[in-house]
Amino acid sequence: MGEEEAMNRRCVVLLSGGLDSAVTAGIAREEGYRLYALTFIYGQRHHREIESAKKIAGSLGVKEHKIISMDLEGITLSSLLQSGEEVPDARDDMGNGIPSTYVPARNIILLSYALSYAESIGAKAIFIGANAVDYSGYPDCRPEFFRALQEAFTMGTKTGLQGKPVVLRYPVIDLSKSEIISKGMELEVPLEHTWSCYRGGEKACGRCESCRLRLRGFAEIGMNDPVEYRA
Amino acid sequence: MGEEEAMNRRCVVLLSGGLDSAVTAGIAREEGYRLYALTFIYGQRHHREIESAKKIAGSLGVKEHKIISMDLEGITLSSLLQSGEEVPDARDDMGNGIPSTYVPARNIILLSYALSYAESIGAKAIFIGANAVDYSGYPDCRPEFFRALQEAFTMGTKTGLQGKPVVLRYPVIDLSKSEIISKGMELEVPLEHTWSCYRGGEKACGRCESCRLRLRGFAEIGMNDPVEYRA
Repeated sequence: MGEEEAMNRRCVVLLSGGLDSAVTAGIAREEGYRLYALTFIYGQRHHREIESAKKIAGSLGVKEHKIISMDLEGITLSSLLQSGEEVPDARDDMGNGIPSTYVPARNIILLSYALSYAESIGAKAIFIGANAVDYSGYPDCRPEFFRALQEAFTMGTKTGLQGKPVVLRYPVIDLSKSEIISKGMELEVPLEHTWSCYRGGEKACGRCESCRLRLRGFAEIGMNDPVEYRA
Repeated sequence: MGEEEAMNRRCVVLLSGGLDSAVTAGIAREEGYRLYALTFIYGQRHHREIESAKKIAGSLGVKEHKIISMDLEGITLSSLLQSGEEVPDARDDMGNGIPSTYVPARNIILLSYALSYAESIGAKAIFIGANAVDYSGYPDCRPEFFRALQEAFTMGTKTGLQGKPVVLRYPVIDLSKSEIISKGMELEVPLEHTWSCYRGGEKACGRCESCRLRLRGFAEIGMNDPVEYRA
């Protein structure tokens, strides 16, 4: 592959350490992209995800993995950030509109960084593992939002004005959790390294919204989740 | 003024320390908004701007001034960041499309933070001092871009889905530099505290694109610029 062709196959992938983003990275790799991964530290309880992201990046052969610290705690309110309230159990929190784990403008911020990085390295696409099926009511995980943000990204960048905008990709947005898990197995994504729990700790809690969705996904296809849960 | 009315009059203003954002803040104040200011540190040469932003915030009576550090140097390329190339003199750089001082996705990143902050404190608007007259070719300083970003902000936030989106305001976008200066004088904005130079140092260089535009603006209305320039 020549230098230009290789540049054309660069993409930025947001790697949170969770299941959806790991499988999304696997899909980008399957499409022939060279992966440049971004992981963000913003005071969330599940710092453990960062370690997961590093292991996943290593397994998937990413070309470069940037860990970005963000000073979000000072400006935002959310139970996902350590300074916020307790993370609720799933039964208290699901199906009631937008949950308290909502971080205002989170995906817009993360994708803005990804856009800056993508344009700087000449990447053609940004992959994000957003999901609108099990998406728990987050406004910034919906296709309508991503379409609007694509337009802003096109209008606000050099590459966009030149007619070659960085393309936003969200390939698991319509997949159920069990479909995402199946896809990950098919693509040999290291699911054993992924971390979904909203709470910290050595083992996943098994009770928060994110753990429940994950466990149900594995159960639906009759597989055991390779990560460990508290008794 | 009651608590609810006061909340309704909160706005976030991006305060760079420069002329345009200071006058923009003055306009927001004139409209009756309570100001919540954000200033970003992202490795730019003109760190001096931060000190200017603090003085301007004090003079304008902002309710809260947050200084946010951003880890941009690792992911982006621009001569405005310290790790980039030399800032060019105006004569080398103007009128040739997008200049080397372009920071990919900068305004998208800054406005995303502002959006998160705005939604967290219940602010109704975000004010940015972008300017499309003397804008030097930055794609993310154009009204078309802000309109597209507004749509993404509306689609991607809780307040947006609830029909009360945070509104993006860019009141100096169509003003010439001299009109901005006149407006600032009229509103008693402390122009003597503003800093426009792209280069660092005790005194402004007077030669970079930003200094030239500013000096021309003061000259056009027959005023002396209150900041000091190198000999």
